[in-house]
Amino acid sequence: MADLYLALLHYPVYDKTGAVVTTAVTNLDVHDLARLSRTFDVRGFYVCTPVETLQRLVARIIRHWEVGPGATYNATRREALALVRQAPELDDAIADIERETGHLPRLVATTARAGEHRLGHQALRARLAADGPPELLILGTGWGLTADVLARADDVLEPIQGIGPYNHLSVRAAAAIMLDRLRAGR
Amino acid sequence: MADLYLALLHYPVYDKTGAVVTTAVTNLDVHDLARLSRTFDVRGFYVCTPVETLQRLVARIIRHWEVGPGATYNATRREALALVRQAPELDDAIADIERETGHLPRLVATTARAGEHRLGHQALRARLAADGPPELLILGTGWGLTADVLARADDVLEPIQGIGPYNHLSVRAAAAIMLDRLRAGR
Repeated sequence: MADLYLALLHYPVYDKTGAVVTTAVTNLDVHDLARLSRTFDVRGFYVCTPVETLQRLVARIIRHWEVGPGATYNATRREALALVRQAPELDDAIADIERETGHLPRLVATTARAGEHRLGHQALRARLAADGPPELLILGTGWGLTADVLARADDVLEPIQGIGPYNHLSVRAAAAIMLDRLRAGR
Repeated sequence: MADLYLALLHYPVYDKTGAVVTTAVTNLDVHDLARLSRTFDVRGFYVCTPVETLQRLVARIIRHWEVGPGATYNATRREALALVRQAPELDDAIADIERETGHLPRLVATTARAGEHRLGHQALRARLAADGPPELLILGTGWGLTADVLARADDVLEPIQGIGPYNHLSVRAAAAIMLDRLRAGR
């Protein structure tokens, strides 16, 4: 089985006007994605923010559950938060994965927008079930990953299609659905 | 297609010691589940809390996005929040659905615990695709729905199985996965 990694980017992402911005780290994103990572065998989950104050916030969340009051309060939460890693930028996450596995990961960007040449969930699921290089699933915050990140990725995952054209899920909900489609025992 | 409803119960649910408690309403639960409801064609999403202060909080969230500053700030959020309804208890949600559809809904409880006679996601998906009575999917907060709610339900949905035995997802993530399995176009 190929190694699967997650990265949650807080920069560069769009805001609602299409400007490139840095978003704030949301505590519940870190928790929900960590628990999803633990559930679906993600090897490491990178919270990417270039803002030092927010890096300190993430470090504090991790520490609270690793050795602080959270560690004894809730062991399953501790187990999940142990997968959280910090990276100022996407490139730092990539370098870290290369160090850990000896291979550059394939970059799979995600978007709620339709477009050409999208990678199907089933195709990525098959890749993960095979013995290929590590795969890094890149999630955006705000109004989504910029065109630059999408252009740089090896693949762009197909958007989640509900019933009808509405496609405004939280990144927490979208990640849950993606990981279930990619990894769950069926 | 059968009508699908959601209810998020803040009472009665377990805490980590197994005591029956009332949990606080989490703003992001309301938002995430509303957006999921809109994406997957849920007809109404009931936030159930017997606590009047928390009912007022939910009312304020709804109003903010219906006619307040949120309505013009973010139209897609408004569209989602329009599906949120208030109910002090599960019975109030059931009565409201009966009023709206003319039928008592089938009650489908959810749990992270394995057990006998669980309803498969595919079986419920088939029921929803048919022209049966409305179905009410009941989600718990805290450490999950009480045995009384499970015993009262017509069905208990099978838990979400990841890779391995870890099954501690947030209710937001679990609901995302359930609705995708039950409703998404494939």
